Amino acid sequence: MQISSDVLSHGGRQLVVTHDSAATATPMTFSLFLPPQAEHGKVPLVTYLSGLTCTHANVTDKGEYRRSCAERGLAFLAPDTSPRGDGVADAEGWDIGLGAGFYVDATEAPWSANYRMWSYVTEELPTLLAGEFPMLDRGRQAISGHSMGGHGALTVALRHPGRFRSVSAFAPIVAPSQVPWGEKAFFHYLGADREAWRQHDAVALIERGGRLPALKVDVGGADPFLERELRPGLLEQACAAAGQPLELAVQQGYDHSYHFVSTYMAAHLDWHASRLKI
Amino acid sequence: MQISSDVLSHGGRQLVVTHDSAATATPMTFSLFLPPQAEHGKVPLVTYLSGLTCTHANVTDKGEYRRSCAERGLAFLAPDTSPRGDGVADAEGWDIGLGAGFYVDATEAPWSANYRMWSYVTEELPTLLAGEFPMLDRGRQAISGHSMGGHGALTVALRHPGRFRSVSAFAPIVAPSQVPWGEKAFFHYLGADREAWRQHDAVALIERGGRLPALKVDVGGADPFLERELRPGLLEQACAAAGQPLELAVQQGYDHSYHFVSTYMAAHLDWHASRLKI
Repeated sequence: MQISSDVLSHGGRQLVVTHDSAATATPMTFSLFLPPQAEHGKVPLVTYLSGLTCTHANVTDKGEYRRSCAERGLAFLAPDTSPRGDGVADAEGWDIGLGAGFYVDATEAPWSANYRMWSYVTEELPTLLAGEFPMLDRGRQAISGHSMGGHGALTVALRHPGRFRSVSAFAPIVAPSQVPWGEKAFFHYLGADREAWRQHDAVALIERGGRLPALKVDVGGADPFLERELRPGLLEQACAAAGQPLELAVQQGYDHSYHFVSTYMAAHLDWHASRLKI
Repeated sequence: MQISSDVLSHGGRQLVVTHDSAATATPMTFSLFLPPQAEHGKVPLVTYLSGLTCTHANVTDKGEYRRSCAERGLAFLAPDTSPRGDGVADAEGWDIGLGAGFYVDATEAPWSANYRMWSYVTEELPTLLAGEFPMLDRGRQAISGHSMGGHGALTVALRHPGRFRSVSAFAPIVAPSQVPWGEKAFFHYLGADREAWRQHDAVALIERGGRLPALKVDVGGADPFLERELRPGLLEQACAAAGQPLELAVQQGYDHSYHFVSTYMAAHLDWHASRLKI
């Protein structure tokens, strides 16, 4: 593990870390913000999964999370969205390949060699953090994400009951099995068997009994992907049918960019903090 | 004038605008944040001048000013730091040429053809804004900036008495005539006559009687440029000798990056707001 950057910011430490990943068989880079409270004891951890085309850097630069995290005493983890480097498979278009790992373990060639982001974010990275950053309180964790990363946050939390006290998402892809981005990615990464897809589809997981302790979702009313790719109504229906509590809001006028994410970041972190501090 | 981006952010509008500049004889791009209060009346304007290597985009992406501006009702203007485009002179190194206009009107070839950032930020851009954005209250203005842009903010304000109610800077170059960055830039842009340099040197201007209504400066204690390029002690001495009020703080542990700027942005905007709302 190599800390490539360690900068004082809002009273805490903004780290950028690179390490060799066994899951992806590549170097991987993540950012980790440690609030000032981490100097004196354990702090809760919010994991944030990013969207298509992003690296760790997008939310680190534009997410405006540090002020709230420093005030609330939250650590904030931002992994990359795919393996990268020489020999890593890629394809035309930004919705598959580099920057588009979709938080699955690919089973199909050529993707299966490196695109193992599910194992990376659910197993390898938590184990690394537990060893290297003992100030992170594994018993008080939240997860969030944006777009493809909102899909990741929902599915990771649904399949790890008890790991996260609260789950939120900004403009998530809630039913990837049913929308073009998800269908394309899952077909290439997971093959033609749609049953395998449903293990990575939040709506399908909720329909099959998956539950979250607390769920908050915001989407932008002017998001150009709202009806075709995000389809929050499918999540609303599944949660209503299943009795899954959901705080869903359509924020009128907001688009899909980090202007939307940063506008609502403080509200999400406040909401997580109130659940993590219990 | 062309609005190339207009995005809802923190309740206001984040614009990016391109226009043909007569001052620089090039297209110029700036960003302008209009807080929600601008929908209903005039709002004060904070002009922020950026540092070496920056465009309008650095502070727009990383400055974390929108939340405070929306809360306080402040518009926030971020111009570019130099002319750009085909035929615009450049040189080796990032401390002269593109991204390094130093807020002067160059008198020396080849720079004099386009590097007229003084005229651009003090005359042309304010005139454009007055015509195109009548919600900006020209009677309630503040100015700030970072590093080279802190130099720009100080010198623009010192030479336009009465235009700005408050002036602040993050890690400013306070005495460019006396430090390597400034000496190199002024020699190339303004020639060998050091008297011309002093018209663009905040410490020299204060020593000659220039005054500011209110001045707040923060510098990072771990800024690698502190002793060689920034030299806040020279500003402190000049202000003390002249009776110029100065709120100067060395923020221990902070570097020269946008982590420093964004950490203290809210405090600067609060400080400006308290003076602009009088």
